[in-house]
Amino acid sequence: MKKISILGSTGSVGTQTLDVVSHHPELFAVEGIAGGYNVMLLAEQVRRFRPKKVSVATKALADQLATQIPAGVQLFYGPEGLLEVAAGTDADMVVTALVGSQGLQPTLAAIEAGKEIGLANKETLVSAGHLVTERAARYGVKLLPIDSEHSAIFQCLNGESLDTIHKITLTASGGSFRDRTRDELKDVTVAEALQHPNWSMGAKITIDSATMANKGLEVIEAHWLFGLAYDQIEVLIHPESIIHSFVEFKDYSIIAQLGLPDMRVPIQYALTYPQRLSTPTGRLRLSEVGKLHFREMDFERFPCLRMAFESGRAGGSAPSVFNAANEVAVERFLQGEIKFLQIEDVIARTLDKHETVDSPELEQIIEIDRWARQTATIA
Amino acid sequence: MKKISILGSTGSVGTQTLDVVSHHPELFAVEGIAGGYNVMLLAEQVRRFRPKKVSVATKALADQLATQIPAGVQLFYGPEGLLEVAAGTDADMVVTALVGSQGLQPTLAAIEAGKEIGLANKETLVSAGHLVTERAARYGVKLLPIDSEHSAIFQCLNGESLDTIHKITLTASGGSFRDRTRDELKDVTVAEALQHPNWSMGAKITIDSATMANKGLEVIEAHWLFGLAYDQIEVLIHPESIIHSFVEFKDYSIIAQLGLPDMRVPIQYALTYPQRLSTPTGRLRLSEVGKLHFREMDFERFPCLRMAFESGRAGGSAPSVFNAANEVAVERFLQGEIKFLQIEDVIARTLDKHETVDSPELEQIIEIDRWARQTATIA
Repeated sequence: MKKISILGSTGSVGTQTLDVVSHHPELFAVEGIAGGYNVMLLAEQVRRFRPKKVSVATKALADQLATQIPAGVQLFYGPEGLLEVAAGTDADMVVTALVGSQGLQPTLAAIEAGKEIGLANKETLVSAGHLVTERAARYGVKLLPIDSEHSAIFQCLNGESLDTIHKITLTASGGSFRDRTRDELKDVTVAEALQHPNWSMGAKITIDSATMANKGLEVIEAHWLFGLAYDQIEVLIHPESIIHSFVEFKDYSIIAQLGLPDMRVPIQYALTYPQRLSTPTGRLRLSEVGKLHFREMDFERFPCLRMAFESGRAGGSAPSVFNAANEVAVERFLQGEIKFLQIEDVIARTLDKHETVDSPELEQIIEIDRWARQTATIA
Repeated sequence: MKKISILGSTGSVGTQTLDVVSHHPELFAVEGIAGGYNVMLLAEQVRRFRPKKVSVATKALADQLATQIPAGVQLFYGPEGLLEVAAGTDADMVVTALVGSQGLQPTLAAIEAGKEIGLANKETLVSAGHLVTERAARYGVKLLPIDSEHSAIFQCLNGESLDTIHKITLTASGGSFRDRTRDELKDVTVAEALQHPNWSMGAKITIDSATMANKGLEVIEAHWLFGLAYDQIEVLIHPESIIHSFVEFKDYSIIAQLGLPDMRVPIQYALTYPQRLSTPTGRLRLSEVGKLHFREMDFERFPCLRMAFESGRAGGSAPSVFNAANEVAVERFLQGEIKFLQIEDVIARTLDKHETVDSPELEQIIEIDRWARQTATIA
């Protein structure tokens, strides 16, 4: 029986993680769950999966939740609640599926408590890849990717040594606006931007797909997760999202991972690795798909991806700033405060104002993150 | 330094194996080579790669070769010559790239001499899969596939256990006549049949691609090589031959191997396994390919593939008969004796006359093979 805790249990990856768990009740026990503001769903999850610890965003929500769950479940809230669910249970593995940079400290706490990490919060590696990978190595903790692209690379590598890799390629569907010119993007609405063609995901990541900022975050994540130079990471537009990503080895043999777009497959692989078990997903039938399309990435069309590569290459605190500015810009777009194409302007202006700090410590990252958010709010 | 011998050094796979060797002279030494009738090429190979033993088809050819090569090279001929090059050298690995069922006995001899096998002669596993796999297990000898599709499956598995496999899919280009109806096949010429759209191969295998008998032989080979039931082996038409084959695991995650059609990649992988080194092939760029197509296999359109599956499922001596009848039928087609669509008739009539023998011994296989060839010659 594998004991797991889930940070972000009410989000898209969180609920799908619990769905995977519910298909293999004999294999998994849920030790702790942390959600944000969706008390009703969290109460339902507590009643169904019986975790020992649960956490919500605020004290008021905790009080509200207390009336809806069985006695004996320990209740927490806020950043301390996240740390409690991350590091204060008997879990063998912590799935970090929080949105944004709030995932950083609980992930580090879970690593220090010796928990395997099922990593769905990409901002953790983006903001603090040097700290997270160093700490994971020090505590002998595995970082198992849950993101579809990184799980694909992880599955393709399957034990091959890093020095056999020539390059990896992350595929990108192109998001909701892949067939529009930049001119046609000027006045797109929030509702249009939230229509992702292939994947069912949260709002933040759906917008990030449309701007390609998401792929940028994935590039930086891949750099840390697989120890690759930025020149070894390529991005390819593949509208069908059937090939989830691939590895090109030194002999130019390519190993790719394919499947229907269903996050439960990479989630379960992280949970059961190195085993594979049946999943509730459907079979991919290429004869029914008929055609797969590929086209080269256009960095002019998607400046957020270009800036992500530039931040990654600059290193140090630059990716934190890229990430924080992007989070604020997306939120401002979702609130109707700025237009779609201004997301990239907000990021660019914030990066421009930043002086990169090499190998920042956690406190510096938090401080720079705060500064970047403030700057992006008015940029 | 890895010592290798090559059976069939003057054929397509043989010459490409020597090309791989010539790109890594520091890694490989050629201990022995066996060719058929191309004395001029064999002489050139001897002078260049300095094997200790060399073999040709007949005594007359051996006498002819003797005048063209340095003194000290031991010369052999005929079936005994093949056995000498297979088992009588210090080679660590024997590449079996002979055409047809003549590869069987030397392969068994090499296994018994403890040589790793680089397997490019698929008829060996088709005719005597039960003997070859049993013997390889007994002598602790690895069978490393060189065929593009089987190398793809082998690379995709990369240590995953058999019980995690749901199905494998061998891709098929469809061969030179993939876009013709059966009606349009009635009067095709030998020259037309020899135009393979993607791969540069020998005549026999090019015809086998057009009839899909080649894919049938590969299905039977995969059955033995990977220990899979026939229901676990699927065939998919993929005209571009870019995805060389793929494995679908129990969780419906698919791992595929891709690359440009260049046999030197699977050949080198067999030679350097589990290492990967640079190859002289080009990089596959999916953005330049643009599109990949897939369509379901049509067993009515390709009866040779249907008969191969039926022979495989019947087991015992049936695949030997399928293989021998096909070899004769293809030869008769190449000689202009029968028409293209009669290849399948010859195979069907020969199979009809055969009473399957379960688990045949080597002598029985040889006898049945001889019977099948005689029968197919007049069928």
